[in-house]
Amino acid sequence: MKKKSKYEDYFLLSDEKQEKILKKTINISLDFLRGDLRDNKFLIYKKPEYLKSQLDSGLPLHLKKIENTFKILKKIGRYSIAQSDLNYLAFPDSGNSLIAMMGALYSKFLNQNLIGFDRSAPVATFIEIQLIEWLRELIGYNTKSLKKINCLADVGGMFTTGGHMSNHVGILAALNKKFPEIKENGLSNLKFSPVILLSKKISHYSIDSAAHHLGIGKENIIDIPITGDYTTDYNVIEKILKKLPKNKKPFMVVSVAGNTRTSNIDNLSKINNLCKKHNLWHHIDACHGGSLLFSDKLKSKYLQNIEQADSVTIDPHKGLFVPYSSSYILFKERSVLTMFSRYQEDCFNGSVWDLGFITPFYGSRGFDSLSLWLFIKIMGKKSIGEIIESRFKIVKFAEKIMKENQDFITLNEIDIYRMAFVFCPDYIQKYITLNSGKINKNIVKKLKSLIDKYSHIINQRLYESGKLCLDEYKLHDAGNKVGLGTEDRYIVFAITLGNPLFTKETIEKSLNILFQEAEKIKIKMYYEFNNIISFKTNVDEKKEYKSGPAGW
Amino acid sequence: MKKKSKYEDYFLLSDEKQEKILKKTINISLDFLRGDLRDNKFLIYKKPEYLKSQLDSGLPLHLKKIENTFKILKKIGRYSIAQSDLNYLAFPDSGNSLIAMMGALYSKFLNQNLIGFDRSAPVATFIEIQLIEWLRELIGYNTKSLKKINCLADVGGMFTTGGHMSNHVGILAALNKKFPEIKENGLSNLKFSPVILLSKKISHYSIDSAAHHLGIGKENIIDIPITGDYTTDYNVIEKILKKLPKNKKPFMVVSVAGNTRTSNIDNLSKINNLCKKHNLWHHIDACHGGSLLFSDKLKSKYLQNIEQADSVTIDPHKGLFVPYSSSYILFKERSVLTMFSRYQEDCFNGSVWDLGFITPFYGSRGFDSLSLWLFIKIMGKKSIGEIIESRFKIVKFAEKIMKENQDFITLNEIDIYRMAFVFCPDYIQKYITLNSGKINKNIVKKLKSLIDKYSHIINQRLYESGKLCLDEYKLHDAGNKVGLGTEDRYIVFAITLGNPLFTKETIEKSLNILFQEAEKIKIKMYYEFNNIISFKTNVDEKKEYKSGPAGW
Repeated sequence: MKKKSKYEDYFLLSDEKQEKILKKTINISLDFLRGDLRDNKFLIYKKPEYLKSQLDSGLPLHLKKIENTFKILKKIGRYSIAQSDLNYLAFPDSGNSLIAMMGALYSKFLNQNLIGFDRSAPVATFIEIQLIEWLRELIGYNTKSLKKINCLADVGGMFTTGGHMSNHVGILAALNKKFPEIKENGLSNLKFSPVILLSKKISHYSIDSAAHHLGIGKENIIDIPITGDYTTDYNVIEKILKKLPKNKKPFMVVSVAGNTRTSNIDNLSKINNLCKKHNLWHHIDACHGGSLLFSDKLKSKYLQNIEQADSVTIDPHKGLFVPYSSSYILFKERSVLTMFSRYQEDCFNGSVWDLGFITPFYGSRGFDSLSLWLFIKIMGKKSIGEIIESRFKIVKFAEKIMKENQDFITLNEIDIYRMAFVFCPDYIQKYITLNSGKINKNIVKKLKSLIDKYSHIINQRLYESGKLCLDEYKLHDAGNKVGLGTEDRYIVFAITLGNPLFTKETIEKSLNILFQEAEKIKIKMYYEFNNIISFKTNVDEKKEYKSGPAGW
Repeated sequence: MKKKSKYEDYFLLSDEKQEKILKKTINISLDFLRGDLRDNKFLIYKKPEYLKSQLDSGLPLHLKKIENTFKILKKIGRYSIAQSDLNYLAFPDSGNSLIAMMGALYSKFLNQNLIGFDRSAPVATFIEIQLIEWLRELIGYNTKSLKKINCLADVGGMFTTGGHMSNHVGILAALNKKFPEIKENGLSNLKFSPVILLSKKISHYSIDSAAHHLGIGKENIIDIPITGDYTTDYNVIEKILKKLPKNKKPFMVVSVAGNTRTSNIDNLSKINNLCKKHNLWHHIDACHGGSLLFSDKLKSKYLQNIEQADSVTIDPHKGLFVPYSSSYILFKERSVLTMFSRYQEDCFNGSVWDLGFITPFYGSRGFDSLSLWLFIKIMGKKSIGEIIESRFKIVKFAEKIMKENQDFITLNEIDIYRMAFVFCPDYIQKYITLNSGKINKNIVKKLKSLIDKYSHIINQRLYESGKLCLDEYKLHDAGNKVGLGTEDRYIVFAITLGNPLFTKETIEKSLNILFQEAEKIKIKMYYEFNNIISFKTNVDEKKEYKSGPAGW
C-alpha cells in the first residue's frame, strides 16, 4: 500500500517497521522488569517536587518522531516502582505471570468491546462467561458447562476493574434484591433507611464509600466490633440487630476473607448461619483470600462454606500474579445481574449475548478478562494451588523470622500473606511487661508516639534507599500485643508476600535489610525512651504520618 | 540464577526465553491486525452455539507447556472482530494508534497501582495528573502547570474505564454538590426526590442506569423532547421546570455532544445559559465529541462554550485511536472530587498524593492513562487536530455518497462521524411522497416493518459474510425523513467512521459492497411492497430484531 499521509506510520498497519518498534517496546519493558532501568532498586526514590519538575510541560502541540517514545518510556521506567522486585514486600500485586502478561498484551491488540456480542466481541464474550463459570466452580457455587449456558441470566457473575467496584456491585445487588422498588422510585421514597452491618475496623474503605455513593448514607453502616485476631466478632451481630431502631432495616452483612490490613479471615460459616437466620444478604470480600480457592487444602482450612454466601468478590490482580485490572464478583443466584438490564426479558430468552446488558457501570470496555482466563487455562487449578501452597510456606517462614526478632512485635497471625508489625525494641517490651497495667496514661501516649516515630523512620529510610519496600499504614493493636491498649492506631510496617518468586533465601535477605536498619537506630531510640519514662522529654506527639491505602 | 522450581519459567524474570515468547506474542498480535489470522475478513462469523462448543471445557487442572499458548491465541484471533479493519464501519473504536499501543503494552509491564503514590505509583501519579490538566486545557477549563498543582484538590478530573462510568461520576458529583447531606444520611432521609432532566431518546443508557444505581430512581429522570436533528430541544426545558411538582427537585441537565445514536451535538451554549439561570448542574456527555477538541476549527463550530459546563466526559477509546480502557471526566470546579475522600482535609494540604483519595469507585488500578498521555505527548495537539479534520472530510464524503444513492434514506446530518440510514428503495420513496399524509395506518405499519426487515437482512448478510461491518440498532426517525411519522423506531444501519486510516477510496469501496448487496434484494422486496399496498399480504410485523448498544 502506498503512503497516504505523514501520519500513516503512526497507525497500526503492522508493517516491519512497526513490528520492530513494538518489539523494542518489549525490550524496554523487560529492562524495567529486570531492574536495568532502575539501577536494580525496587525504586529510584524522588520527592514529588522533583517528579513534577521533570514532567512539567504544557499541552504538546507538534508531532514528534516515533523514536522519541523510547527515551520517554525509559525515563518513566526509571522512576516507576517495581512491584515484582524481590525486595518489594508491600503489596501482593506482583503481576508477573508470563502467561497472564501474554493475555494482557494480546487483549490490547484484539481491542474487543465486551459491551456487545455482534460487531463487538463474539468469541471474547464466551471466554469471559467461561471464566466466570470457572470462578464459580472454584468457590463452590453450582456450575454449568459452557454449552449449557443458555442465556445471559445464566451468567452468574461479572468482571470489574477492581475490588472497590466488585464490592460496590455486591452491595448494589443486595440492596436491589431486598428493595426492588428503588429501581423506579429511588431511595428517597422509602419510609426507612436500609442498613449494612460490618466491622469498620477491618473492612475495606470501598464499602464505606459504597454506602455514600449508593445513597444509603454512611450513618447507615452499623459497626460490628472485631476480635483480637482482626476478624469480625460474629457473636455481637444478634445483639446489634435487636437494638436497631424500627426505621433502620438491615439487609446485608459484609464479611472479609482476607482483610486489607492483616489479611485475616472471618469465620465465614458462623456469619453465613446468622445471615440465613435473619434473612440478610451475606457478601464476602475475598479480594485477598480468593487465591486460596485454588488449593483444596487451604480452601478447606480458611474458606469453609464460602459457597453459602450470596456474593463473593475476588481480585486476581492481588495475589494471583495477573497484571491490572482483574477483579470479579460472583453470585450464588445466577440471574441477579439481570435486575440491572434495561431489557430483562431478553436476558432470559437467549436471543441476546451482549454482556453490557448485565454489567452495571460498564458499557464499552476491553478484553481484560483474557489475562486471567489464559492464566488458568495454561497453568491449571492444581498447579496454581501448588504455587499458592508453596508461597504459604514462605509466608510462614517469614512469620517465624519476624517473631524471632526481639525488637519487633507482630500484631497479627498470618492467614494468607500479610503481617503487620511495629518496631518496639526489647528494652521497651521489657518495660511494658514489668509495668503491665500500671503505666501512667501520659507515658502510654508518649511510648505509642515513640513506636510510631521510629517505625516510620526505619520504614521511610528503607523506602527512600530503594533497598526494601514494606507497607506502612495505621492499624489498631486489636490483640493488645504491644501491651499499651487497643485504642488509637499505630503506624505499622507490613509485609504482604504475593510474589511467587520469593524463596526462603530472598525473604531472609530482605528481612535482614530491615533488621540491620533497625539495629542502627535502636540506641538513639533508647535515649528518647529513657527520657520518656523518666519524664524528661516530649516526643512530638502530634506528628501525623502519611498512611497507606490499607489503613484507609 | 539457578532454577528454583518447575514454575519458574512461568513468571517474569525476563530471560531470553521469555523475551522470545513475548515477541512471538507480538507477532501473533500483528497477524491478527493485518488480517492473516482471520482470512482477511473483519470477522470470520460463527454462531454463538459454534463458539460455545469450540470453547467448552471444565476448569483446567494441569500445567501445560507455554508453547500451547500460541495456538490458543491464534484461535482466539481467528474468531475475534477487527475494529481497525478498513471494512469495519460500525463503531469508532479503532484503537490503532501505534504510540497509544506502545503505552498500553508498557503499562502492563510497569503494573503501577494508581491507588497510591508511595509504594504504588510515584511518577505515574503525576503523569495522570498532567494528562488531566491537558484535557482541561483542551476543553477550555482553567489550567495550571504541573508544578503549580499543589495538592489533590487541584486535580480537576479523573480517569475512568468507560463513558458509562464517567457519566455516572458526573451525576454522582452533581447530586452530592447539590445535596451534601446524602453522604451521611442517605437519600432515604430526603423529603423530596432529586430530578435529572435529559432527552431520553438520544442520551446514553448509562444515565438512565445511573439514576437507578445512585438511588435516584428512574422515574426521576424527566424527559426533554428532541428536535428533528437528534438534539435536545432546549426550548422546552423551562416549560418542564415550571410544571414539576414541589416534591421533585431538579438538580442537573445532561446534554450530549455527539449522542451514541447519531453523534449529533446539542446546542451547548443555550443549555449552559438555562442551567445558569436555574442553578442547575450542566453535565455534557462528550464521549464521542471529545475528539473534536483537538481541532480549533471543529471545536469552535461544534463545541462552543463547552467550557461553561460543570462537567464534561470524553472517551479517547472512541474516536481517538487509543485501545480500551480510556475515559475521563473533567470538572469546571477543580476540587469537586474531594467530596468523595474519606480524608478531605488531606486533599487540600498537599501532604498526600494518593489518587485513590479522589477517585470514587476505583481503588487499586493500573496505569491505563499512560496510553493517552503518550499519544498526546508524541502526536501533539495540532497533528491530532489535523487527523480529526481530515477524517471529518472523509465523513462528509461518505455522507455525500450515501445521499446520492436513491435506495437509502439517511436519518441524520453528520456532525462528528456517525450516520444512520434505512434501506427504502426508490419505488417505496415515490409511493410515500405521492401519497403523503394519506396512507392507511395499517399500511404505514406494514411498510415500516418491510423497511426494518430488509434493512436487517442486508446488514446481517454483510455481517455474516465478513465483508462489511455496519452498525445496527433501533432509532426514531426524528426528522420524519422516511415520511411515515416519527413514532416507533426503525431498525437502522449506521456507519461510524473512527479509523484514521480510512480514505475516500476505502470508503467508496466499502459502501459499494453495501450497495451491491442491497441491489440483489431490491426486486424481491418490490413484490412484498406491492402486495402490501394492494392489501394482499402481511409482513411478519411482530418480528423483533436484535438491537445494538447504540439503541439501548
